[in-house]
Amino acid sequence: MIIGLLGPEGTYSEKAAIKLDTSAQLKYFIDLEEVIESVITGEVDYGILPIENSLEGSIGITMDALLEYNINIIGEVIVPIRHCLLSKGRMEDINVVLSHPQALAQCHKFIRANFKDIKVQTTGSTSHAAQAASSSTEMAAIASRESAEKYGLNILADDIQDYRENHTRFVVLGKHIPDRTGNDKTSIIIHLLRDRPGALHDLLGEFVKYDINLTKIESRPSKMGLGDYLFYIDMEGHQQDGNVKNAFEGIKKLIDQVKIIGSYPKNTKK
Amino acid sequence: MIIGLLGPEGTYSEKAAIKLDTSAQLKYFIDLEEVIESVITGEVDYGILPIENSLEGSIGITMDALLEYNINIIGEVIVPIRHCLLSKGRMEDINVVLSHPQALAQCHKFIRANFKDIKVQTTGSTSHAAQAASSSTEMAAIASRESAEKYGLNILADDIQDYRENHTRFVVLGKHIPDRTGNDKTSIIIHLLRDRPGALHDLLGEFVKYDINLTKIESRPSKMGLGDYLFYIDMEGHQQDGNVKNAFEGIKKLIDQVKIIGSYPKNTKK
Repeated sequence: MIIGLLGPEGTYSEKAAIKLDTSAQLKYFIDLEEVIESVITGEVDYGILPIENSLEGSIGITMDALLEYNINIIGEVIVPIRHCLLSKGRMEDINVVLSHPQALAQCHKFIRANFKDIKVQTTGSTSHAAQAASSSTEMAAIASRESAEKYGLNILADDIQDYRENHTRFVVLGKHIPDRTGNDKTSIIIHLLRDRPGALHDLLGEFVKYDINLTKIESRPSKMGLGDYLFYIDMEGHQQDGNVKNAFEGIKKLIDQVKIIGSYPKNTKK
Repeated sequence: MIIGLLGPEGTYSEKAAIKLDTSAQLKYFIDLEEVIESVITGEVDYGILPIENSLEGSIGITMDALLEYNINIIGEVIVPIRHCLLSKGRMEDINVVLSHPQALAQCHKFIRANFKDIKVQTTGSTSHAAQAASSSTEMAAIASRESAEKYGLNILADDIQDYRENHTRFVVLGKHIPDRTGNDKTSIIIHLLRDRPGALHDLLGEFVKYDINLTKIESRPSKMGLGDYLFYIDMEGHQQDGNVKNAFEGIKKLIDQVKIIGSYPKNTKK
């Protein structure tokens, strides 16, 4: 099995891939779009993408891609995130901090408290930041502990995210729809019929009627204009379950757009 | 009247402040936290903060600050956003692109299509990027057209956000609660009692019962753990309106945390 993921070696996506399947062959890409494209072309069997972090919320690129591309979520993996400040230099030498935008946001308070007048540079991944920081004692990367060893950096500070409890949920992308296991989740994206007060309440009512537990509901801009939203909804159950089918039938009158983006085994192991 | 806002001169926040009050004195700060602190200490009368963009969604720092600080939304302003690529050099000279993380995200496809192997540097604001880019022909900023004139840069490309329609909603922060105007909005943050299926449906039902139209509902991580969310809800009406009071009374049994973050005149002028 070949899994496509964000590289280079040492990303949190790599931890997710290993957690999913220790024997899989890993193929690294430079951005999330390339991971998705590699699944679509069949260059890899599955792709792994971060979708949601417990501090910063959803990863916009992944959310948008699930709408845009014809691809399924076939599984999920949760990975604990502990960021470190890594450098070849000392704290007082640093004038550039590099990392992925999400990691920078998760360490916003730390950066604000410890650095003034430095440059903040974004990279395609945390391990890419570690790789780049190994070229100068004036640079520091925010990345995983494992990246320090891999790229020959010292750990100047550990657990630097703004809140200690920090996890990222990754989704596994593929082209098939996994069979029912009896402990599944289904994810959909919907757009409500325009501007009817109470429409969201009615929508949720259909899921209550068929006894379906929603594990997440999130609005995202539809990009059609300010104040117009899509709803991303995760629920317990498989799209082949009778009650899920009934609810999907029931919501039809309330929406003008629905996309089922996957049914997959629920995974809450941290 | 003194308005605190993100600087230096030329930010989109400045456009919002001028739209709010052309005669106000503007005081620029280096980040959003400093704007908020200046309102709390009384250094300025009001603060202006971006809260939501029509392409990228909510601005996390503002959302988190509304929860953290004891401050009210007293108004809102909507500003059209048209990003330009600005530089002293030519397209082929550029090896660093600078901007605010939100602007970089709004131009993600443009950057990916036009640049390979360049450095992407984040700045505290778009105009700060323009100011920094004026120091070298190898740098380009993503910022407003007005920043080009202000910092002596050429416009290499115009309207470079990934979708043409692009607006940001700003909130005005202050210490008082504005009086009813009859055309108001109220914003709250709530946390539902843990893990009861149907709880959100019941919550929305209280607003339906009192005929209150919700203009926005958004989940944000509570930072207490993956899968635990706060809901940010905007509704039509003022917290002194009878039906809003009744709904707030009705939702009490469903939540363990509520914060009213403001009642203010509705403003949809683009």
